[in-house]
Amino acid sequence: MKKILIINGPNLNLLGTREPSIYGGSSFESYFNRAKESFANDLSLSTKQSNHEGDIVDFIQQAMRDGIDGIVLNAGAYTHTSIAIRDAISACNIPVVEVHISNIFKREEFRHKSFLSGVCVGIISGFGLESYTMALNYFNTKN
Amino acid sequence: MKKILIINGPNLNLLGTREPSIYGGSSFESYFNRAKESFANDLSLSTKQSNHEGDIVDFIQQAMRDGIDGIVLNAGAYTHTSIAIRDAISACNIPVVEVHISNIFKREEFRHKSFLSGVCVGIISGFGLESYTMALNYFNTKN
Amino acid sequence: MKKILIINGPNLNLLGTREPSIYGGSSFESYFNRAKESFANDLSLSTKQSNHEGDIVDFIQQAMRDGIDGIVLNAGAYTHTSIAIRDAISACNIPVVEVHISNIFKREEFRHKSFLSGVCVGIISGFGLESYTMALNYFNTKN
Amino acid sequence: MKKILIINGPNLNLLGTREPSIYGGSSFESYFNRAKESFANDLSLSTKQSNHEGDIVDFIQQAMRDGIDGIVLNAGAYTHTSIAIRDAISACNIPVVEVHISNIFKREEFRHKSFLSGVCVGIISGFGLESYTMALNYFNTKN
Amino acid sequence: MKKILIINGPNLNLLGTREPSIYGGSSFESYFNRAKESFANDLSLSTKQSNHEGDIVDFIQQAMRDGIDGIVLNAGAYTHTSIAIRDAISACNIPVVEVHISNIFKREEFRHKSFLSGVCVGIISGFGLESYTMALNYFNTKN
Amino acid sequence: MKKILIINGPNLNLLGTREPSIYGGSSFESYFNRAKESFANDLSLSTKQSNHEGDIVDFIQQAMRDGIDGIVLNAGAYTHTSIAIRDAISACNIPVVEVHISNIFKREEFRHKSFLSGVCVGIISGFGLESYTMALNYFNTKN
Amino acid sequence: MKKILIINGPNLNLLGTREPSIYGGSSFESYFNRAKESFANDLSLSTKQSNHEGDIVDFIQQAMRDGIDGIVLNAGAYTHTSIAIRDAISACNIPVVEVHISNIFKREEFRHKSFLSGVCVGIISGFGLESYTMALNYFNTKN
Amino acid sequence: MKKILIINGPNLNLLGTREPSIYGGSSFESYFNRAKESFANDLSLSTKQSNHEGDIVDFIQQAMRDGIDGIVLNAGAYTHTSIAIRDAISACNIPVVEVHISNIFKREEFRHKSFLSGVCVGIISGFGLESYTMALNYFNTKN
Amino acid sequence: MKKILIINGPNLNLLGTREPSIYGGSSFESYFNRAKESFANDLSLSTKQSNHEGDIVDFIQQAMRDGIDGIVLNAGAYTHTSIAIRDAISACNIPVVEVHISNIFKREEFRHKSFLSGVCVGIISGFGLESYTMALNYFNTKN
Amino acid sequence: MKKILIINGPNLNLLGTREPSIYGGSSFESYFNRAKESFANDLSLSTKQSNHEGDIVDFIQQAMRDGIDGIVLNAGAYTHTSIAIRDAISACNIPVVEVHISNIFKREEFRHKSFLSGVCVGIISGFGLESYTMALNYFNTKN
Amino acid sequence: MKKILIINGPNLNLLGTREPSIYGGSSFESYFNRAKESFANDLSLSTKQSNHEGDIVDFIQQAMRDGIDGIVLNAGAYTHTSIAIRDAISACNIPVVEVHISNIFKREEFRHKSFLSGVCVGIISGFGLESYTMALNYFNTKN
Amino acid sequence: MKKILIINGPNLNLLGTREPSIYGGSSFESYFNRAKESFANDLSLSTKQSNHEGDIVDFIQQAMRDGIDGIVLNAGAYTHTSIAIRDAISACNIPVVEVHISNIFKREEFRHKSFLSGVCVGIISGFGLESYTMALNYFNTKN
Repeated sequence: MKKILIINGPNLNLLGTREPSIYGGSSFESYFNRAKESFANDLSLSTKQSNHEGDIVDFIQQAMRDGIDGIVLNAGAYTHTSIAIRDAISACNIPVVEVHISNIFKREEFRHKSFLSGVCVGIISGFGLESYTMALNYFNTKN
Repeated sequence: MKKILIINGPNLNLLGTREPSIYGGSSFESYFNRAKESFANDLSLSTKQSNHEGDIVDFIQQAMRDGIDGIVLNAGAYTHTSIAIRDAISACNIPVVEVHISNIFKREEFRHKSFLSGVCVGIISGFGLESYTMALNYFNTKN
Repeated sequence: MKKILIINGPNLNLLGTREPSIYGGSSFESYFNRAKESFANDLSLSTKQSNHEGDIVDFIQQAMRDGIDGIVLNAGAYTHTSIAIRDAISACNIPVVEVHISNIFKREEFRHKSFLSGVCVGIISGFGLESYTMALNYFNTKN
Repeated sequence: MKKILIINGPNLNLLGTREPSIYGGSSFESYFNRAKESFANDLSLSTKQSNHEGDIVDFIQQAMRDGIDGIVLNAGAYTHTSIAIRDAISACNIPVVEVHISNIFKREEFRHKSFLSGVCVGIISGFGLESYTMALNYFNTKN
Repeated sequence: MKKILIINGPNLNLLGTREPSIYGGSSFESYFNRAKESFANDLSLSTKQSNHEGDIVDFIQQAMRDGIDGIVLNAGAYTHTSIAIRDAISACNIPVVEVHISNIFKREEFRHKSFLSGVCVGIISGFGLESYTMALNYFNTKN
Repeated sequence: MKKILIINGPNLNLLGTREPSIYGGSSFESYFNRAKESFANDLSLSTKQSNHEGDIVDFIQQAMRDGIDGIVLNAGAYTHTSIAIRDAISACNIPVVEVHISNIFKREEFRHKSFLSGVCVGIISGFGLESYTMALNYFNTKN
Repeated sequence: MKKILIINGPNLNLLGTREPSIYGGSSFESYFNRAKESFANDLSLSTKQSNHEGDIVDFIQQAMRDGIDGIVLNAGAYTHTSIAIRDAISACNIPVVEVHISNIFKREEFRHKSFLSGVCVGIISGFGLESYTMALNYFNTKN
Repeated sequence: MKKILIINGPNLNLLGTREPSIYGGSSFESYFNRAKESFANDLSLSTKQSNHEGDIVDFIQQAMRDGIDGIVLNAGAYTHTSIAIRDAISACNIPVVEVHISNIFKREEFRHKSFLSGVCVGIISGFGLESYTMALNYFNTKN
Repeated sequence: MKKILIINGPNLNLLGTREPSIYGGSSFESYFNRAKESFANDLSLSTKQSNHEGDIVDFIQQAMRDGIDGIVLNAGAYTHTSIAIRDAISACNIPVVEVHISNIFKREEFRHKSFLSGVCVGIISGFGLESYTMALNYFNTKN
Repeated sequence: MKKILIINGPNLNLLGTREPSIYGGSSFESYFNRAKESFANDLSLSTKQSNHEGDIVDFIQQAMRDGIDGIVLNAGAYTHTSIAIRDAISACNIPVVEVHISNIFKREEFRHKSFLSGVCVGIISGFGLESYTMALNYFNTKN
Repeated sequence: MKKILIINGPNLNLLGTREPSIYGGSSFESYFNRAKESFANDLSLSTKQSNHEGDIVDFIQQAMRDGIDGIVLNAGAYTHTSIAIRDAISACNIPVVEVHISNIFKREEFRHKSFLSGVCVGIISGFGLESYTMALNYFNTKN
Repeated sequence: MKKILIINGPNLNLLGTREPSIYGGSSFESYFNRAKESFANDLSLSTKQSNHEGDIVDFIQQAMRDGIDGIVLNAGAYTHTSIAIRDAISACNIPVVEVHISNIFKREEFRHKSFLSGVCVGIISGFGLESYTMALNYFNTKN
C-alpha cells in the first residue's frame, strides 16, 4: 500500500472559514477523513499543515526519511515566493503533485507564477477539494 | 448521461509518433477507445481534432448547439497564442477543463503563459494521457 | 456607388447571444439589413465572417480582386495577435477602417494592443453596432 | 436639444498651420462653424480650447454645472500623460467621446497609450476633422 | 503657533460629490472648518486648491515666502505624474506630508507609484478625511 | 474598550540599536509602555514580535480567535516579499493598518512595493514611532 | 533524387504585386519554374502556399508521410506568431530551412523575433527570391 | 539682429536659492543681465519663466507670432513629462536648443529621459548657467 | 582567537545526499570537523543550520550578542528571496561573507540575483566546500 | 572579377579546435583555400581575422579604400555587442552579408540580437562553413 | 595656457565622407586646424583618434601623465557600449566634456543611452562640429 | 608545478592610484611580487594586463598554446560587456576563476551582470587584492 502525504501551506488551516467564495465552505479535516476512507484499500494517507515555509521544507525532508511514496502539495502563498521549497522537492526523490483549490490563473497576476511547477510531476488547479482527489487518484492508478 | 467533448489542438494527431520523450508513445485513438469504455455508463464521449485555430473556435461554438455538458480542451500550441479560443470559451456557457499531456511549466518560457486558463474551470498539466482521465472524472463526479 | 465590404472576425457570428453585457443583444444580421437599407442609395454593402485568421486574409485579398472600395474590419480577437492580417491590409490598396463594438481599452490589458491600427485609416471603438455605422458614414462622405 | 461641448487640448488652436501633413490644412474654427450649422436642428454646440491641463479639468467640471449632455474630447498630448483629466471624466457623469485627428497608432510609441480611453464611452482616431463629426453623430443618434 | 497649509490637487474640489464610494460623501470645506476648530489652540490652518499642476508649484513656493511651517499635500492625480511638484518640495525647506483619502494601493496600478513620496517626510493613505487629521496631528505633536 | 494588537516583523526587536539613523534611537518596548498608558482609557493594547514569516501568519489567525478589533502591522522586510501574510489579512475579518517607521519610498527600489497595502485599510510610513500612534488614533476615533 | 518541398505562408501568393519595394516585382510562380528547371537533375521540387496557419501545420505533417527530404519554409507573418508551426517542425524529422525574401531585421521590431529559427537548421533572410535558391543549394550540396 | 527667447520652466525662478549644491548660487536675473550686455551687438534677448506647462506651450506659440529666431529652452521638470511642449516645438518652425544647468544624466533615472531632445536642434547639459551662454553662442555664430 | 560562525540555510543539511552532481558527495559535518581542526590555532568555529528564514535572522541577531567576529553565510535559496536576512546583516555590525557551493551564475536565472551581496563584504561562489575555506582564510588573514 | 573580402571576428581563428560540436571540426584556412579555388574564375577572394573590435572597424574602412566589391562578415561575439562595427558598415558603401556558422537562434538568448543585421544586405546563419559559400554565391550571381 | 586634448572614437576619421546627411561634409582635420588657430592665445590643443575602445582608455590614462587640463571626448559608438572608457574617466582626475556631432536623441533608441554622461562634466549633442567649439569655449572660460 | 596566469583588464594598471576608496591604495605589481614569493614552491605565476578587449581574448588563446594550468581573470569593465572574452574562455580548456577587487554587487546596477561567470569555475568578489590570493589558493589546493 502506497504511503501518500498531503502537505498544506499557509492559511489552509482556515479552509471552510476563509473567504468561502474562493475556497469553498468545508474544512480540510472533513475532506481528509472522507478521502482516507475512500482510498482505504489502496493508499495510506497522512497530512501536515503549517504556516511556516521552513516547516514545509522540513516536512518534505522528513518524508524522505519516512519512506513516503508520493506527496500532494498545496503550498498556498509559498507557491509563488519559495525557492527553498522548490529545492527541497528537487533534493528528495519523491514525486510531488502540485494542487490548488482555486484556479490561480483567474486571480491576481502574482499568483500566476509558481516556483514549484518546474520540479513537480504536474499541476492541478481550480477544482476545489476535488483537486486533491485527482492527485490521489493519480498516485493510486500509476504504478 | 452527460455529453462530454474532448477537443485536441495542433499536432496532437501525431501522439504516439511525435517526440515520445515528451508526449509518450501511445496514440490518442487507443486512449480514447479505452476511456469511452470505462466511462460507458456515465459519460457520452466524443472527440475532435484540428491543426486550425479557427476550427477549434468552430468546435466550441458547435458544442453549444449540440448540447454538450462539458469540454476537455487540450489546445496544444494555441494555448499560448489564441485569444480567439479564449473568447469562444467565454461566449459559450459550457464548463471547460484545460489539460496538457506534458508539464508545460517544465518547458520553454513561452509555454508557461496560457490565454485560456483564466476562462476555464481549472487546469491539469503533466500527467500524460491520465490528464484527460482526471478531467473526465471531474465531469463525472461533479453534479 | 462605392462597394464596401464588412469583415467580421472570430465569435462575432454569436452577436446577440454572446456576453450581451459586453456586446449588446442584437444579432449582426439584423443590424446589417438595417444598414444596407439606410445606405441603399450610396453604398453597395456586403459582409463576410469567419473564425479563421486565414479566411480573413483571404477575404482581404479577394476584396482587391472584387474591386471593393473600402473595408470595415472588426477582426475580433485576431486584432491583438495577427500579423498576417496586418500584412494583408498593407498588401491591398483598399482603405480599411478598424472597428470594435466594445471599448477595447476598458477590457483586459492584452486587448489594448492592436497589430492592425498602424496600417488602417483609423480606429472606432466602443459604440456598439453604431461603430460600424460610423465607419460606413466615413466611406460615404469622403470622396 | 442636447447640449454638446467640444474640448480641444494643447496646440490644437494651431490647426491649419501646424504640421499640415499630419493634421490637415483647415482651421478648427471653420470646421466648427460648419458643424454648428449642420447640427443646428439637433445639437447645441459649444467649444473650448486650452494649452493647460488644469483648464481642461476645469472645463469638464464646469460642464457638469452647465448641464452639458455630452463631451467630445481631443485632449491632444495630454491624452498620453494626464491622470488628472482622467479623474475629471470619472468624476463627472457626462458621457465623453475621445477623438483624435490623426491615427495615433501610426505615430510614436508613446502616443499609443491613452490614460483617457478607459473612462470614455469610446475612441475615434484617424479621420481628420471628420472624427469630430462622427462623435457628434453618435450623440445625435443615441437616445 | 505653527502655520500649516493644506494643499489639495485636481478634482479634490469635488469631494462629497465625486465618486462617493471612493472618496466619501462630505465636502472638504466642512471638514476643514471642523479641523480649524479642533486645532484652534495649536495650529493656524489655511488651505488652497487647484486643478493646475503649475498652481501647486506656485503654492509651495509661496509657502516659503509666507513662513509656513508645514504642508499637508494631497496632490491627487499629479502625485503620479508630476516631477515639477517634486522639485518644488525639494527646493523649499518646509516639511511636507503626503496624504491620500483613498488607499492608492488598492486602485489602478498607475496610482501605486508616487513621484512625491521620496521627498516628503512620510505618506498617509487610505483613512478618508482622517488622513488629513493624522498629518495635522503629526505637525502638532512634533517639535 | 477596543482590543488592538500591534504586530512587529523581523529585526524590529532591535529598534533602538539597529541603524539608528534610519530607525531612531529608542526601543519599541519603551514606546509601547508610553502608548499603553496614553490610550489606557480607550484601547486595550497588546504586542507581538517575530522574525518568522509563519509566526506573523499565526499571530493574525490567532487574533481572530482572540476577538481583536484592529491590528497595527509593521511587517518589516516581509512587507515586500510575503503573500502568505497578505492572505492571512484577507482571511481574517479584522481591519489592519500598515505602518512603517522609515519612509520606505526614500529607500531601495525593492522596498517601494508592498504585498500588504492592497488588503489593508491604509498605510502610514515615515513618521518614526509616531507612525504607530497615528494608527492607534485611527482605531480610537473611528467607530 | 532528393524531394524538396517549398512552403509559403500568408500573403506570399501576392508576390510581384504586393509592396514591390519590399518584396520585389516578380511572382513566385515564375521563380519556381526557373528553379525547378535549374535543379532538374538533382532535386525534385514541389511547392504549397496557404494563408492559414493550420494548413502550414498540415503541409509539414503531410511532408513526413510523403517522404520529403527537406523543407524550405517561408512562413511569412506566422514566423513571428506561430508556436503551432514550430511544434510541427519539431514533430517531423525533416530538416527545415527558414527563408525570408526581405531582411526581417530591417523592418518593424515585432518581425525580429522568430518562433521558428530555434527548431530549423538555419535561417536565410534578405536576398529576395535568391534566399530560396540558397536554401535549395544547401539541400543539393549537403549529403 | 536675431531675436532670441530664453524660456525657463518650473522652479527655475528659484535659482540662487534652490538647492545651490545642484543649481549654483546665482540668480537667473543677474545672469540674464550680464548675457544681455555681452550679446548686445548681436542678439536681442528676452526671457520668460513659468511653473505652468501650459504657459510654456503658450510662450512657444507666441514666439512664432513674435518672429523669434531661436529659443533656448530649459523646461526643467517638464523636460521629462511633457509631450505638449514637444508638440509645440514641432508645431513652431523656430529652432530650439535644450539646455540644463545640472548634468541630468548624473541625477535620478527619471531625469535621463527627455521628451524634448528628439525635436530640438541639440542638447547642452551640465555646465551651470554657462549652458545658456553656449546656446546663445550657437545662435550667434550659425547663419 | 577570532570567533567565526558558519550559517547554513535551507536544504544544506542534506549535503552529501542532495543532488550530488550539483553539490558534491560529502556531508557538511565531515567538512566542518576537518575545518575546525585545520584552523584550530587561529579561529574558534561554530556552525548552525536551519530551513527557516526566521531562524537565520535569529542566528545573526544572536551572533551579535555572542560576540562573533565574522559570519560565513550560505543562505541557500533564501539568498534570492529574503530581505529579512539582508536587514539582519545590515543591523548587526559583524562582517559577513556570502558563500555558495555551486556557481549560482551557471544555474537558473532566478538564482543570479542575491538580496544579500549588497550588504556582505564579498561573495565566493562555485568552489564546492572549498568556498567555505576561502571565507575562513579571509577572516584568518585580515586583521 | 569582383573583389570579395571575408572578415572573421573573435575566436574564429580557433575553428576546427574550438567547441567542435558547435562549430565543426575543420579549420577556416582549409575551407578558404577550397573556396578560393572553386570561385577562381569569378571572384577574387581575400580574408582577414582579428579578435579586436577596432581591427574589424579598420578592416571595413580599409576595404573602401581597396575597392572591395562585397564583404562576407562573421563578426562572432561582436555581432551582439558592437555598434562601432555597425557604424563602419553604414559608413562604407560596400554591401555586407552577415554570416554565422552555428544557428545563433538555437543558442543563448543574448546571441539572438544582432546589432549588424539592420545594416547588412541579409543574414545567413546555421549552415556551418557552407554559410560562407552561400554568401559568396550571392555576390557571384547578383550583378 | 591650458592643455586640452580632443579624443575622437570609431569612424570619426571618416568625417566629411561618412553619411554627410548625418555628420556634415567637412573633415575633422580642417576643423581642428581652424580651432587651433582661433584658440591659439588661450588653449594648447592636441587630438587623437582611434577605432579601438582600448586605445581610448589608453589615451585617457596617458592624458593624466601628460598633464592635460581638459578632455573633449566624442567616443562615437563606444559612448553607448563602453564601461571601460567610463572607468578610465572616473580614474583620471581630468574634467571631460562629452560631445556629439549629431543629436543622438533623434537617432536609434540604442543611441539614447550613454555610459559616459554620468561621469562627465556635461554633454553637448547635435550642433555639428560646433559641438567641439562649445566644449573648447567651456574650458577656455571656466577657471 | 602548476602554471597559473593572472590576467587583468582595463584600468587595473592604475591600481593604487585609481579611486583608492574603491580599489585600495597598493599597486598590483607589489602585490604580484609578494604573491609570487609566497607561492614560489607550488605555482609558477605570470601576469598580463591590457586595456583592450581583443588583447584579453588573445591572452586566453595564447594561454592554451603555453600550457597554462589555470587562469585568474579580473576582466574589469569587460566583465559586464564582453561576449568575446566569454567565448574565448569556452573555447580554451583551461579552468578560469573570475575575481574582482571590489564587491561588484555593491556598485552600479550595470556591474551586477557578468557575461563571464557562467563559463568560469567560480567567482570571488569584494576582498581587495586578497581576492587574487583566494583564487591562487584554489588552484594550489585542488588537484
